[in-house]
Amino acid sequence: MSSKFGKTLQVSIFGQSHGEGIGVLIDGLPPGEKLDMAAIDLFMRRRAPGRSRLATARQEGDKAEFIAGLVDSVTCGAPVCAIIRNQDTRSQDYQQMADIPRPGHADYPAAIRYKGAQDVRGGGHFSGRLTAPLCIAGAICLQLLAKRGISVGAHIASIADIDDDPLPTRGLSKEFLGQIADKPFAVINDLCGEKMQQAILSAAAEHDSLGGIIECCAINFPAGVGNPLYDGLDNRLAQAIFGIPAIKGLEFGSGFAAARSRGSVNNDPWRIENGKVITSSNHHGGILGGLSSGMPIVFRVAIKPTPSIAKTQSSISLSRQENTSLNITGRHDPCIVPRAVPCLEAVTAIVLLDFLLEINK
Amino acid sequence: MSSKFGKTLQVSIFGQSHGEGIGVLIDGLPPGEKLDMAAIDLFMRRRAPGRSRLATARQEGDKAEFIAGLVDSVTCGAPVCAIIRNQDTRSQDYQQMADIPRPGHADYPAAIRYKGAQDVRGGGHFSGRLTAPLCIAGAICLQLLAKRGISVGAHIASIADIDDDPLPTRGLSKEFLGQIADKPFAVINDLCGEKMQQAILSAAAEHDSLGGIIECCAINFPAGVGNPLYDGLDNRLAQAIFGIPAIKGLEFGSGFAAARSRGSVNNDPWRIENGKVITSSNHHGGILGGLSSGMPIVFRVAIKPTPSIAKTQSSISLSRQENTSLNITGRHDPCIVPRAVPCLEAVTAIVLLDFLLEINK
Amino acid sequence: MSSKFGKTLQVSIFGQSHGEGIGVLIDGLPPGEKLDMAAIDLFMRRRAPGRSRLATARQEGDKAEFIAGLVDSVTCGAPVCAIIRNQDTRSQDYQQMADIPRPGHADYPAAIRYKGAQDVRGGGHFSGRLTAPLCIAGAICLQLLAKRGISVGAHIASIADIDDDPLPTRGLSKEFLGQIADKPFAVINDLCGEKMQQAILSAAAEHDSLGGIIECCAINFPAGVGNPLYDGLDNRLAQAIFGIPAIKGLEFGSGFAAARSRGSVNNDPWRIENGKVITSSNHHGGILGGLSSGMPIVFRVAIKPTPSIAKTQSSISLSRQENTSLNITGRHDPCIVPRAVPCLEAVTAIVLLDFLLEINK
Amino acid sequence: MSSKFGKTLQVSIFGQSHGEGIGVLIDGLPPGEKLDMAAIDLFMRRRAPGRSRLATARQEGDKAEFIAGLVDSVTCGAPVCAIIRNQDTRSQDYQQMADIPRPGHADYPAAIRYKGAQDVRGGGHFSGRLTAPLCIAGAICLQLLAKRGISVGAHIASIADIDDDPLPTRGLSKEFLGQIADKPFAVINDLCGEKMQQAILSAAAEHDSLGGIIECCAINFPAGVGNPLYDGLDNRLAQAIFGIPAIKGLEFGSGFAAARSRGSVNNDPWRIENGKVITSSNHHGGILGGLSSGMPIVFRVAIKPTPSIAKTQSSISLSRQENTSLNITGRHDPCIVPRAVPCLEAVTAIVLLDFLLEINK
Repeated sequence: MSSKFGKTLQVSIFGQSHGEGIGVLIDGLPPGEKLDMAAIDLFMRRRAPGRSRLATARQEGDKAEFIAGLVDSVTCGAPVCAIIRNQDTRSQDYQQMADIPRPGHADYPAAIRYKGAQDVRGGGHFSGRLTAPLCIAGAICLQLLAKRGISVGAHIASIADIDDDPLPTRGLSKEFLGQIADKPFAVINDLCGEKMQQAILSAAAEHDSLGGIIECCAINFPAGVGNPLYDGLDNRLAQAIFGIPAIKGLEFGSGFAAARSRGSVNNDPWRIENGKVITSSNHHGGILGGLSSGMPIVFRVAIKPTPSIAKTQSSISLSRQENTSLNITGRHDPCIVPRAVPCLEAVTAIVLLDFLLEINK
Repeated sequence: MSSKFGKTLQVSIFGQSHGEGIGVLIDGLPPGEKLDMAAIDLFMRRRAPGRSRLATARQEGDKAEFIAGLVDSVTCGAPVCAIIRNQDTRSQDYQQMADIPRPGHADYPAAIRYKGAQDVRGGGHFSGRLTAPLCIAGAICLQLLAKRGISVGAHIASIADIDDDPLPTRGLSKEFLGQIADKPFAVINDLCGEKMQQAILSAAAEHDSLGGIIECCAINFPAGVGNPLYDGLDNRLAQAIFGIPAIKGLEFGSGFAAARSRGSVNNDPWRIENGKVITSSNHHGGILGGLSSGMPIVFRVAIKPTPSIAKTQSSISLSRQENTSLNITGRHDPCIVPRAVPCLEAVTAIVLLDFLLEINK
Repeated sequence: MSSKFGKTLQVSIFGQSHGEGIGVLIDGLPPGEKLDMAAIDLFMRRRAPGRSRLATARQEGDKAEFIAGLVDSVTCGAPVCAIIRNQDTRSQDYQQMADIPRPGHADYPAAIRYKGAQDVRGGGHFSGRLTAPLCIAGAICLQLLAKRGISVGAHIASIADIDDDPLPTRGLSKEFLGQIADKPFAVINDLCGEKMQQAILSAAAEHDSLGGIIECCAINFPAGVGNPLYDGLDNRLAQAIFGIPAIKGLEFGSGFAAARSRGSVNNDPWRIENGKVITSSNHHGGILGGLSSGMPIVFRVAIKPTPSIAKTQSSISLSRQENTSLNITGRHDPCIVPRAVPCLEAVTAIVLLDFLLEINK
Repeated sequence: MSSKFGKTLQVSIFGQSHGEGIGVLIDGLPPGEKLDMAAIDLFMRRRAPGRSRLATARQEGDKAEFIAGLVDSVTCGAPVCAIIRNQDTRSQDYQQMADIPRPGHADYPAAIRYKGAQDVRGGGHFSGRLTAPLCIAGAICLQLLAKRGISVGAHIASIADIDDDPLPTRGLSKEFLGQIADKPFAVINDLCGEKMQQAILSAAAEHDSLGGIIECCAINFPAGVGNPLYDGLDNRLAQAIFGIPAIKGLEFGSGFAAARSRGSVNNDPWRIENGKVITSSNHHGGILGGLSSGMPIVFRVAIKPTPSIAKTQSSISLSRQENTSLNITGRHDPCIVPRAVPCLEAVTAIVLLDFLLEINK
């Protein structure tokens, strides 16, 4: 139960980084939905390592192989299962990994939790690689949301100390979000994006890594969807979002800035505009009391710097129970933020669709 | 299912602000646990309105009446149910509340969600009053954690732009946390607390309200507890914490600051000190990959300013479908942050105990 | 989590036989449903001890006190909580009960399960008394089903070796079921009922007890509702039904008789009659592959004889770890079957409504 | 969520009879358990069509391919996923299947439930073929139970009107159960088994089918395990067991016979024998109040005759909305009871292990 989320729509992730394969089981998709399989592949490519969406049409990302739940690309109501075979999974140095926990990774607590039986190769079930099957599920849910007129999009709001332009409070559209998604580097302002990429290259050159902030939104999500107290939109988004590795913070709407504000400023006045109920500002980020307000759902997540860095680090030997040092080899993204963008869209789409299916919409 | 959380230990909250009563159902407490009923009352008083913990021993807060689950104050293994009768629940102006949604409240989305049948009196099931039964459950769980050597505590980290001293990275103790809890205003540095209270009074005088940040921690929680992906400590803490009204942000460890940091700084090196595995810093906030690291679990939440303010606000009439203005009467806390401190401790205690019971500890 | 069932509609039962009170928490009822409170009381009286439905209008059964979830008898969408205060709960001989487990009761396994902390008074949380709050929930669900045109009814199919007439295969109507429910002794054929009552009195005179079989049905439940494999109508009915104490068997449609039949006989041919899809027989009991077929849902449960009998029985002393004998005092129903009839209707109504709400019907 | 069961140990089944593959996801297995892969294959062969356990070592049954959760055949704590590729899945006549529902099958309700999008080929997700991945999970759980000293076994209690010898009340042993499992036809008395097989051949010759009863038991399961009310051993066994296609009845211990008995006979007196608490009879079937008593857990299930028979049957055309007749072609087991034996053992093992893991045993 640890590797799944959702209620009416349940998404279970399985696999280890260097095992036979990874995959996803999706239970609760409505029957009769024709899926655009090419769009799923395209979405997967946005997450694929070392690639940009536009430039790499001929390169293949992780390819989903569907085992169950579809008949001629149409959902049949039975659980959907898709797997991705792992390839190139050399794990020669896993003896070291079992003994010397990497700082910033779950190696040490996992060793205790699983009494030493955890799959240490590449982080096993804790690896960021597990976001690939998440993206399969997300790509499907994005399609089903789109049929309902709902768009989900995200941009890199900051890397290190470089900020992208903020999402516009008004005028967010499917087209606007689509343009960001089409970019090889998902920012609103490409000049900022250029600086961010320079910063990442800089950090990499210094054998270091960077984190960043992603801002995500969903538009046209209907008002009055969600539940009170512990089962609201924010609760379930939060639960699922912290399932993406390296996320350490989450704020809805004005978030931490709201804590420094005043009620008279932070309250978003209700207005009727063209016969539609809106708020004239969106400090609440589209969620009030766990329910959607009809305004764009907006939130930001903090992603920590990639813990795997090429610098020598201090650690311990579990077998010898003494302090030691550690050198991590292999290629690692100096900043995972760009690849986390589609992952965040995926998890958001899954959670939002789950809420709609819960009320049969 | 919307009003409950937890897995092995399930806490269900019921009631509406101005209904017959509010209460909590707690399923999964281990049998044979002798409860300190006076300590429960004392904890409830920390949340009670217009009171401080030390000064008001003779005043009564919300008093829990136990209906089920105890025999002579000892848990018998059956579900524990406690209720609090509502008193003084005049609701003369609820017609207005049903028609003119209050900015910053869930009135409007609730009207849609519940098709107009929601209990509008005092916010109904969405009211902050529902944190009272949460605190009953929390008070019980704090006792059971204490028996296991684990302490949970919180302080007001900031109100408006006034910051308290941060929690010490080392030397956090049961006594240190107990001293904060004993204070009428839960800060580390009383001078800061004094300024915060002045800021609150100031805002109130201007018919306005303030938000703030609470920092919470749990110490002596064993390493290796939790689950990967979507069922980790952070996931379930997040899901439950966003169930406390007005919380708009959550960050673990360095959180959003980590997003501006570098891997070489943000990684917490493993060390063995006096035969114990620790990290020499705690940017990760005690959680890695959803599992406890053995270090203090530390997180901060952003609380928005009280949405109920005495100033005239813009809103709409749902019946007339037109813009209008709204004056909210009645007494409202100009800043709920102080009263939210025990609520946050409560929800944290419940979640952490749930994880321990899951592995029969 | 042990004391609840349901998915979209969750019913949690709490309380112990001789504690402060017993009650039920019902989460997931649709908002805006006006409840007939008198009908709830009337239904509760069908379950009340030593009473018949028609004869005892002036005597009061267990009276539900609603704490939450209703505004002027209308569901507001928040969880509904109702409690019943326990009265007359003298428990003078519970020391014996803690030491000498009653044959046929859960005393011994409960002592191990709860390490001796279980509430032994009157069976505690295992008592048949816990079916009273179940009936509150059931009475509500029966009303909501009735609004959807669905009726649930049951009759005593047999006591000892005396059989009632079977439910008619065709012509089952709301009126037919209502007539049985109105009877003080719920049989189709009152002559059989008379013999059954004689048999019960006979057994009681011999300080012994009887069991029996109840047949239950639901009519007008739409076709195509349910889920495959482990979450079908039969699965969830079965899970909930075995929660009524003393039930030891359950069969749908022809049940165990089907095991002795042949496919050519047991298969129910599909027919179109007056534009409606039916089967010309109903060996399948209205459920195929976990889904409703549109035919009446029919099942039978086996109820064991009341384990509390006045005869001296063999047992053991847990404290002395030796064989001993036991005399159970107090009044006990020599046959609980008649009182179990509304309980079975209640649980059936809850499960069926849950399935309908799951698909927003 | 419909295709899974379990709490601490969750088993999700996926796939359709004639899709790419079928499989199982198992979440919650303890880490560090070395699995006997050959024993899994051997168990699968007991369920395989047209085979007997002893005679067919060289023939291959459905072969589990493990994708996730194991490292060198040892559980690593991450979810275990195994798939079976479907082969020989010609589905030429599925147009007819979509239009003319087979009597005794879920075709018609599924067409409504899934709005015509269901996978009709071979029954799709409703097919008995889905018990193959169930058996993979069961084979694993049987191994883990065996390490805890617990054995699960079953025998064919009756086919048509031929009864096997009953399970002995005393003296049930791992060896006794193992001997039955080793037989090509799982009966205690081989003479009865011979007659049963003759009856099956007879029915098949007449283009008809038979049902039967399977009796299952678990021995050495510790006392005091389970939960009250709706989450007991019987509740969860019942929920899962009705997930095996064609099961229409379930009784624990004396079951329906108990309904005809008296308390003085049906109550099982507690005894201490050789320092161990037992009951001198086992009418309760090892379960009291949802908890294990320490006695063998015994239950019987009724399996209906195979609905697919070669005889011409009456049915309807959904497209033409008229009555018609149907001839089912292809090979079908004239009696699925023998192959259901390991399936019942599998589901029992899964549920029982789940209960033990819930209390970390």
